[in-house]
Amino acid sequence: MSPFTAIRADSALARGERRLIADIRGWLGRASPRAPFGIGDDCAVIPPTRHRQLVTTDPVIFGRHFDAGVSARDVGAKLLKRNLSDIAAMGGRPVAAVVSLALGADASVRWLRGFYRGLAACARRHRVRIVGGDITQGPERFFGAFLTLHGDSAGTRVVTRTGARRGDRIYVTGTLGGSLLGHHYRFAPRLAEGAWLARRPEVRAMMDVSDGLAKDLFSLTPPGLAPALVAAAVPVSAAARRRARVSGRSPLAHAMGDGEDYELLVVVRSGADPGRLARAWRRRFPGVRLTEIGRFVRAGAEPAGALRPGDFHGYEHLR
Amino acid sequence: MSPFTAIRADSALARGERRLIADIRGWLGRASPRAPFGIGDDCAVIPPTRHRQLVTTDPVIFGRHFDAGVSARDVGAKLLKRNLSDIAAMGGRPVAAVVSLALGADASVRWLRGFYRGLAACARRHRVRIVGGDITQGPERFFGAFLTLHGDSAGTRVVTRTGARRGDRIYVTGTLGGSLLGHHYRFAPRLAEGAWLARRPEVRAMMDVSDGLAKDLFSLTPPGLAPALVAAAVPVSAAARRRARVSGRSPLAHAMGDGEDYELLVVVRSGADPGRLARAWRRRFPGVRLTEIGRFVRAGAEPAGALRPGDFHGYEHLR
Repeated sequence: MSPFTAIRADSALARGERRLIADIRGWLGRASPRAPFGIGDDCAVIPPTRHRQLVTTDPVIFGRHFDAGVSARDVGAKLLKRNLSDIAAMGGRPVAAVVSLALGADASVRWLRGFYRGLAACARRHRVRIVGGDITQGPERFFGAFLTLHGDSAGTRVVTRTGARRGDRIYVTGTLGGSLLGHHYRFAPRLAEGAWLARRPEVRAMMDVSDGLAKDLFSLTPPGLAPALVAAAVPVSAAARRRARVSGRSPLAHAMGDGEDYELLVVVRSGADPGRLARAWRRRFPGVRLTEIGRFVRAGAEPAGALRPGDFHGYEHLR
Repeated sequence: MSPFTAIRADSALARGERRLIADIRGWLGRASPRAPFGIGDDCAVIPPTRHRQLVTTDPVIFGRHFDAGVSARDVGAKLLKRNLSDIAAMGGRPVAAVVSLALGADASVRWLRGFYRGLAACARRHRVRIVGGDITQGPERFFGAFLTLHGDSAGTRVVTRTGARRGDRIYVTGTLGGSLLGHHYRFAPRLAEGAWLARRPEVRAMMDVSDGLAKDLFSLTPPGLAPALVAAAVPVSAAARRRARVSGRSPLAHAMGDGEDYELLVVVRSGADPGRLARAWRRRFPGVRLTEIGRFVRAGAEPAGALRPGDFHGYEHLR
């Protein structure tokens, strides 16, 4: 469904500021607490926290992150899920979000209703409150929604991307590749998995795979080290195989480079017992794979058969 | 200066994601703490707080909030100051911000450097850390920067827009109107004033004047009441008088409706001693006016000579 309309009466902005904000509060329903804790004052108010807080921001923009082929509800949910995945990657718990919209005078109110309902349903599922936002007119045929999500580290530990050492094992949750076939808006952010992994003493570093394993692995790799991956171990998704049938590229290339997997990439300290981690994982998440895909080695000391992430292209945002 | 360039080598996006992010960290300098507290991980980490927290979000968009006549540095500073004014209006203290950019491939790297340097200088002045963000490609000739600012309520009290009662006095800081002549990017957010007012027991409600007094007053007015303003008391700015010379409208109309004043609108309980408040204010803020402009009365019981905000137009964002 297209976010735009040629009919002035169907335009979201034609409703005027007050009515549109009232509409949005209605569409958000229970996901929108009352002022001052929600929409309607100069700032939203959120409770104090004992733990360190997490903040992340990711948008969805028409023509970039979605098109008319995706439903408005799915776009709204995806906006929140992209950000939830970042909270998951630090082992945190999501709390509250604000949403800033820029949209043309031709943005459809019906589409916007679907967008907010999708956002609200996802927010309720993950107990996130939509506490504020802003609406500004942008150019025609433009729709951008910019969400900032706050989370709680839910403990004293925040798992960052840094800390990997030589010999550490590299794991990934789920399967990778082919997200364009639907996963990129159907995925479930790995919040429970991230929080569980953050409590495991074996876990040294973590991030989510959003730009593709090949590219994202670099962000976990300390200077002087290199990831040595076992090609056969990389968990290739069924969608990556389907994509490969028409793309002329291998399923592995899709798994390495497609991006938008929103799986967790996890560094486990070399001395840890991998069997023990695997058993505990299977008990807690029997339906989700956790796969060891390689190790960090000294740069230049990669085994001859090891896969090099540099062989594959990850998603480049700015091109 | 125009944010756009026709020369590919001068494009910000042509630098690629990694180099551009490194540039931005350089431009932000000390305003950007190191990961995980700043840019560079899945989320930024901010310390826990004992007090309730404030969150606000406001953008700057080319063609809407600025044009090529404003310097890039002023645009960057304005982005933060718009949000600081919201924190001031709740009596809070700013802490940390994230910035999400959407910009066309034609956005100039030189312009962007000025923008971030202006943002950074303003952030340092107000001790705000720029802890994270996102950059996404948007359409050509588009530049939008969406900032979310976190603050601390700096005490148990958060002053909201609600709570005015019949007989309460209405005050405003500074002078109003004519902001387009320069005030809209030169203004200083009333942070010290807001924090001071929030500690005064006389103060019942507060907000900032961003859309014009005429429009914003409605947000402070409870059902059944109406603001009765004394026309002669409204502090009209010199810029409003200058605008009136060419606009054919009165200086008062500019003061009531221009918007972007970023002054504080304050409700003081009827039983309080106005002389005592005025003296304490003058001691603390000798260079800033605090003017009583009217009172809240029963709706329909406005004195014959009272100014009605409905007589004037405030700024309508969505048109």
